[in-house]
Amino acid sequence: MSSDEFKLDKQRGARTGLGEAVFCQNKTVSQITAILESVDSDATPTLFTRLTTSTIDQLSAHLRGKLDYDAPSQTAFYRFDSSRPSRPGSVAIVTAGTSDAAPAREAERTLTFNHFRSTRFFDVGVAGLWRLLERVDEIRDHQIVIAAAGMDAALPSVLGGLLGAPIIVIPTSTGYGAARNGETALAASLASCAPGIVVCNIDNGYGAACAAIRILNALKQPSQPQQ
Amino acid sequence: MSSDEFKLDKQRGARTGLGEAVFCQNKTVSQITAILESVDSDATPTLFTRLTTSTIDQLSAHLRGKLDYDAPSQTAFYRFDSSRPSRPGSVAIVTAGTSDAAPAREAERTLTFNHFRSTRFFDVGVAGLWRLLERVDEIRDHQIVIAAAGMDAALPSVLGGLLGAPIIVIPTSTGYGAARNGETALAASLASCAPGIVVCNIDNGYGAACAAIRILNALKQPSQPQQ
Amino acid sequence: MSSDEFKLDKQRGARTGLGEAVFCQNKTVSQITAILESVDSDATPTLFTRLTTSTIDQLSAHLRGKLDYDAPSQTAFYRFDSSRPSRPGSVAIVTAGTSDAAPAREAERTLTFNHFRSTRFFDVGVAGLWRLLERVDEIRDHQIVIAAAGMDAALPSVLGGLLGAPIIVIPTSTGYGAARNGETALAASLASCAPGIVVCNIDNGYGAACAAIRILNALKQPSQPQQ
Amino acid sequence: MSSDEFKLDKQRGARTGLGEAVFCQNKTVSQITAILESVDSDATPTLFTRLTTSTIDQLSAHLRGKLDYDAPSQTAFYRFDSSRPSRPGSVAIVTAGTSDAAPAREAERTLTFNHFRSTRFFDVGVAGLWRLLERVDEIRDHQIVIAAAGMDAALPSVLGGLLGAPIIVIPTSTGYGAARNGETALAASLASCAPGIVVCNIDNGYGAACAAIRILNALKQPSQPQQ
Amino acid sequence: MSSDEFKLDKQRGARTGLGEAVFCQNKTVSQITAILESVDSDATPTLFTRLTTSTIDQLSAHLRGKLDYDAPSQTAFYRFDSSRPSRPGSVAIVTAGTSDAAPAREAERTLTFNHFRSTRFFDVGVAGLWRLLERVDEIRDHQIVIAAAGMDAALPSVLGGLLGAPIIVIPTSTGYGAARNGETALAASLASCAPGIVVCNIDNGYGAACAAIRILNALKQPSQPQQ
Amino acid sequence: MSSDEFKLDKQRGARTGLGEAVFCQNKTVSQITAILESVDSDATPTLFTRLTTSTIDQLSAHLRGKLDYDAPSQTAFYRFDSSRPSRPGSVAIVTAGTSDAAPAREAERTLTFNHFRSTRFFDVGVAGLWRLLERVDEIRDHQIVIAAAGMDAALPSVLGGLLGAPIIVIPTSTGYGAARNGETALAASLASCAPGIVVCNIDNGYGAACAAIRILNALKQPSQPQQ
Amino acid sequence: MSSDEFKLDKQRGARTGLGEAVFCQNKTVSQITAILESVDSDATPTLFTRLTTSTIDQLSAHLRGKLDYDAPSQTAFYRFDSSRPSRPGSVAIVTAGTSDAAPAREAERTLTFNHFRSTRFFDVGVAGLWRLLERVDEIRDHQIVIAAAGMDAALPSVLGGLLGAPIIVIPTSTGYGAARNGETALAASLASCAPGIVVCNIDNGYGAACAAIRILNALKQPSQPQQ
Amino acid sequence: MSSDEFKLDKQRGARTGLGEAVFCQNKTVSQITAILESVDSDATPTLFTRLTTSTIDQLSAHLRGKLDYDAPSQTAFYRFDSSRPSRPGSVAIVTAGTSDAAPAREAERTLTFNHFRSTRFFDVGVAGLWRLLERVDEIRDHQIVIAAAGMDAALPSVLGGLLGAPIIVIPTSTGYGAARNGETALAASLASCAPGIVVCNIDNGYGAACAAIRILNALKQPSQPQQ
Repeated sequence: MSSDEFKLDKQRGARTGLGEAVFCQNKTVSQITAILESVDSDATPTLFTRLTTSTIDQLSAHLRGKLDYDAPSQTAFYRFDSSRPSRPGSVAIVTAGTSDAAPAREAERTLTFNHFRSTRFFDVGVAGLWRLLERVDEIRDHQIVIAAAGMDAALPSVLGGLLGAPIIVIPTSTGYGAARNGETALAASLASCAPGIVVCNIDNGYGAACAAIRILNALKQPSQPQQ
Repeated sequence: MSSDEFKLDKQRGARTGLGEAVFCQNKTVSQITAILESVDSDATPTLFTRLTTSTIDQLSAHLRGKLDYDAPSQTAFYRFDSSRPSRPGSVAIVTAGTSDAAPAREAERTLTFNHFRSTRFFDVGVAGLWRLLERVDEIRDHQIVIAAAGMDAALPSVLGGLLGAPIIVIPTSTGYGAARNGETALAASLASCAPGIVVCNIDNGYGAACAAIRILNALKQPSQPQQ
Repeated sequence: MSSDEFKLDKQRGARTGLGEAVFCQNKTVSQITAILESVDSDATPTLFTRLTTSTIDQLSAHLRGKLDYDAPSQTAFYRFDSSRPSRPGSVAIVTAGTSDAAPAREAERTLTFNHFRSTRFFDVGVAGLWRLLERVDEIRDHQIVIAAAGMDAALPSVLGGLLGAPIIVIPTSTGYGAARNGETALAASLASCAPGIVVCNIDNGYGAACAAIRILNALKQPSQPQQ
Repeated sequence: MSSDEFKLDKQRGARTGLGEAVFCQNKTVSQITAILESVDSDATPTLFTRLTTSTIDQLSAHLRGKLDYDAPSQTAFYRFDSSRPSRPGSVAIVTAGTSDAAPAREAERTLTFNHFRSTRFFDVGVAGLWRLLERVDEIRDHQIVIAAAGMDAALPSVLGGLLGAPIIVIPTSTGYGAARNGETALAASLASCAPGIVVCNIDNGYGAACAAIRILNALKQPSQPQQ
Repeated sequence: MSSDEFKLDKQRGARTGLGEAVFCQNKTVSQITAILESVDSDATPTLFTRLTTSTIDQLSAHLRGKLDYDAPSQTAFYRFDSSRPSRPGSVAIVTAGTSDAAPAREAERTLTFNHFRSTRFFDVGVAGLWRLLERVDEIRDHQIVIAAAGMDAALPSVLGGLLGAPIIVIPTSTGYGAARNGETALAASLASCAPGIVVCNIDNGYGAACAAIRILNALKQPSQPQQ
Repeated sequence: MSSDEFKLDKQRGARTGLGEAVFCQNKTVSQITAILESVDSDATPTLFTRLTTSTIDQLSAHLRGKLDYDAPSQTAFYRFDSSRPSRPGSVAIVTAGTSDAAPAREAERTLTFNHFRSTRFFDVGVAGLWRLLERVDEIRDHQIVIAAAGMDAALPSVLGGLLGAPIIVIPTSTGYGAARNGETALAASLASCAPGIVVCNIDNGYGAACAAIRILNALKQPSQPQQ
Repeated sequence: MSSDEFKLDKQRGARTGLGEAVFCQNKTVSQITAILESVDSDATPTLFTRLTTSTIDQLSAHLRGKLDYDAPSQTAFYRFDSSRPSRPGSVAIVTAGTSDAAPAREAERTLTFNHFRSTRFFDVGVAGLWRLLERVDEIRDHQIVIAAAGMDAALPSVLGGLLGAPIIVIPTSTGYGAARNGETALAASLASCAPGIVVCNIDNGYGAACAAIRILNALKQPSQPQQ
Repeated sequence: MSSDEFKLDKQRGARTGLGEAVFCQNKTVSQITAILESVDSDATPTLFTRLTTSTIDQLSAHLRGKLDYDAPSQTAFYRFDSSRPSRPGSVAIVTAGTSDAAPAREAERTLTFNHFRSTRFFDVGVAGLWRLLERVDEIRDHQIVIAAAGMDAALPSVLGGLLGAPIIVIPTSTGYGAARNGETALAASLASCAPGIVVCNIDNGYGAACAAIRILNALKQPSQPQQ
């Protein structure tokens, strides 16, 4: 690939507080290779998302060896510093079903890469309401809730009525037929009867985690900016 | 209107157990007048649905006087025999919000016209879950549940997980934007995570009641038809 | 898979009268393996749906051997007790075409697993009306009708006009072009000119059977709950 | 209106066998006035479709007086010669419901204007199948069938299985919710399980009649054009 | 496959004038085998459509040997009698592009199987208008026109303005992006500015040919059925 | 209206930190009257949204007099205590165009009613990028950004790349044709190339403000809940 | 209206070569009044689009008197200098039908306001191909073609095959049913079989004219910018 | 393949100024072979687009050897004369991201084949606005801008506000979920807040280049055609 096909935005972290990240879907193996070589040239810690096992297998062994890859979330860390302490704030990651685990794990990995902690509350969807109710107090102990749900996405509405925390919904593509690849979960979340819920793109665990980071970063700022 | 534009299906009651009914939307005043005169000619008890106040006002005073009209549900009874005892079985009519009252009342009126009892559980949507949980035992005392919900239609999924009764969903056109005139509530009900929920057309209170009547009529039949 | 990714709802049967079931689509082989091991740990009879031949082949021989798998319906029984007598009530399963057999068989297997009987009336669609008319009396002998139809889904409307029984439609993804993967059959069933028909998600044989079970379970309850 | 905004296609009749027609929807009163004056200038017989009562009322009394207007079909004849004998061939116009009468009448008027005969079979939809079956022999006596149906449009599929004649479907906008302003009837007709049915635009009675005229005109041609 | 999964409609030919046909898409190899054995048991001439090379290869050599298979159109004849003379009438099959050849050939094969003649006019789309104009007189010599076009489907509108013959459109799935798998060609054909064009489902060459056969069969009937 | 049609959720404030609010669209005048009388009975401060001038005019003068109504935002305050000091935190409300002012003002009023401050940055859309760039430092001084944009909704993406603050998008129904009543702005916001942007329903200024309040409330909590 | 709701982009002309313009749809009368007063304060020539007769009538007589309003195109000129000579270049504005005149006239007025000439070729749609063919040489004499077409939008494809000029399509909302308010014309134009056609939003005559101006302005620049 | 399935439009160049091109998607290998042989028979320079590596590999080595194939753009040149000098005019090809490179390169190759120059400005999307701003002066030096962008397609709106040049948008299918395979980028481009932007089909680099060529060819014509 000729080198004029990409231009990394290495100032993004300074501007927005979000670490460097590369979205790999729709990119060819040669484009990903070129990007990896570029970040490797100046050792920029980088998160790779939507990186399939098939693509990983086509990278050179040399480059592949530099990545910490997690198959269920299709993410890879390049030069993640695990010794750095967690930053303040914590996030509950809630899923309606087991099938929603992949985007939830993408959110979890993105938070980890950015040095934030999170806790899993998986498979607590409302068809068995007791599963949610028995854990709601634990969830309430977190500052932010990320809720991944497909099909009818009833979970975020129930959470929104029970909790005062910011709730970031990841509509997932779980389901079939009228679930329409996540479009129904997306629309239902947007039209939720519970006020103040906010929504990301379908299966966008990375985006939900970035939204949580934006909020957690805001916590650290002086809270009366205008006087 | 020339009389060759309609043909009443007066045998429908015998075939399907559902009383005569006329859907008035998309019909002209002159068509409705002709139909009313026809049912009046042999005194067939008839339910009129989707009959607007504006249309009622354009009927002759003579015909209008023969109708028992209910504006909130846009229904009218022609020759309903209120002295007849209720038939066995009872139906809980549950709505997520106040705005869902119109189709819920259409269902209620249809059941009444067919001599079945029902009970209202209105405005118990899941954004305030306690409203539903404090009444769920009462709802459980009914054989059939009709659930009217718009926006994200989370209510039917929660009900489906709590109850073993047949649950008939009326997705409603309540909401705006991503609620898409009820399409989101419809899709979410169909894609519900709770098993065995069944769905009618958007705002179709009449259809939900007819489905309940089909079930209640099935109760009276011998339960081993095949031996 | 870490064990915090699923949480079985083993009380569902007590709450709703529906046996334990696991929807396998969108789940990974390792998730299904973990769930199978969990139900095996306390011998809970469980129905697996949307379980493909490909997934079955990737399970360990040990686990696979514990399943009664039916490829055409993509269902598996874990610990189904075939010696238990059928419960009262019977269901007619009607399809418009041969191509609708898969979801119809999913419904049939779900009924069987829950100890209800059913009868097949396959390929009786309305393009050859005589096929339906010659069997309509037999169908009428059943308390509940499940109707699977794709393309234009004209069959449920014709059935709805001929029968008084509850009619549960499975719109199927049979067809191409304007059939839109079952969306047209779904919309046509919802907009049916026959009153009181109810609808499940596209290809959702499991859901249709659960709806039938909810109705048949209601039959056993005292019919005057309110006095 | 400046005269450069329209250009009548007065040779269309010679080319296609279809009389001059003006589609009035989306045209302003001043545009329709200018067109009327143009056809009046050389006395060209013309059919006006989608001409609302409101527009008619805004025309000058002079022009209005030259039109034979039919409100239910929103059509007007300019200089129709009723003394001319009918041309060979006959068309059955069948509707599923009373609400489908308007486009059916548009088809009827278009046939009349072009000197073809037709017969009405209105309100014979499949929810009451006997209504259709008792008239099917009469319908079979016609060379062409135009079938207008909304909602689920099950009627054309049943007709297509019973008859060998050309069947031209007018999907109608009758219905609500999942009927989607006729889109469901349109899609169901296109996806019909009965072979060889053809479809026009929603509510397009004019187009269905033109299609019938194209067929009836083909009858008169020598049937072995290629030798 | 158990034999209760299909029911052939062998009376269809008598009722509708269309020969026996089996739509193979969405059917399993075992279902197709069973149907083939059934038609073979009484030697019923049968047309198979949407029969892929892959399915053909999975049939037993014995059965495969009885079929006259044409890969480009995915059709097979069982017991086609090529010695029977053509029936009167002829059809022009016109395509906008080379890519539309597959459904056009499905139409051609369906006509052949039913003993009607047709002529090809392929790749005469309007982007190079001269290609159409130089052949329009030849096309005009046919009684019926079948027009297959994808993308914007401009061809049928131009044909509709030039010819008086019945025009049956096959919208095709040729194209990408805004062509939306044939939906745009379908909608454009339905909304055509040329009057009296009729439309089949996307890529439905079989249906277009059946519609042509319905028309050609109507030619043979006495043309004054009503006196 | 019978009093069983609504059930206020007066505990919502305690559970979620959001004041009582009533969504008036889809509610009848008599329903709104009954709700107003209910909140008046115990003097609960209440925000009314989507309250049209036409509905306000149909309320009794007595009730109307108790409301502080703002026509451009279609909101009314019942018993807002303007003497109460603002709570910590501030919100920038940015709009792409003048036409987006109505939902932006709904957000502003909701914040005011809940005692939070906000600042307007209206009509700074990217077609004239200098308008945005000259104010971006001022916007950066706020903890949270609410961005209202219709048509192509390019503004939130540009903001997302420039700022690290939480950005809550209100897609608006501004525009026509391909803007599809806000659906395009909604989809574009969800698919934004800028990471961590979150989205509310179309024109949902109330929801965006509630999301901001959830975040601002989270600021006040201890930031290490898990140790 | 408070003055912080709009911010005019008076440098746009210098940046892009397009005169000041205000899109009035979705703006209130008070917003338009404030904008008019602002442009009047420094006498900036301004084009107002989508300005309805109803809005014009609600402006003060003083402001209304300063506008040159054209009702058919819903445009108004503020301080258009008609004495200024036309700029080089000319544009053919072609419409398929009379009903497409409104957006075509919006394009014409926008060109006039920017001092470019144009010529009308209205109602030359392809259903009567001779109307187009007899004027194609005249059209070819223009540097740029703007083509407005609704329904199936076949006209731009035919033009694209006949001409080498830039062709800018305005899909129009003319039509009904499957025309889907211009969506079909839009999609058909985008999927056109003729190469190099470009498309604007539905009914966007203003945008088509701006695109033409961008092209005509490019003509004046030196044609070898890179050496 | 029989030779009656295609008909090349070799006069297209003379009529429209665009070289011969063959769209290979939806064509079979045998159709492409036949076309190649035809252009080879008279040595017509031809551009092949959407030609996959898989198809190339199935061509005969003889034919394959005559093609100059570029895999990233899926284009092939047959008899391109690289010695011919470039024609006047230059085009900037701008992409929002690396993932948009494929259609951008298709545009680049089409321009090259037609002897026009272009310059790449890849990966300058607005999420990192500085990347665009630092190159905007370079872009401004070109007469025409082709902008390829997926997801939210914010880039063309920003460009449209900064530049006066003609801007031709290629919406790309980059993205997932709400990006809807490029439909969102397409709709956002059409609804852009920047005036005079024009749009091609999704991923249609060939069409964008043809539009640029139409404009560049117009430059060479006398600019006062009407006097």
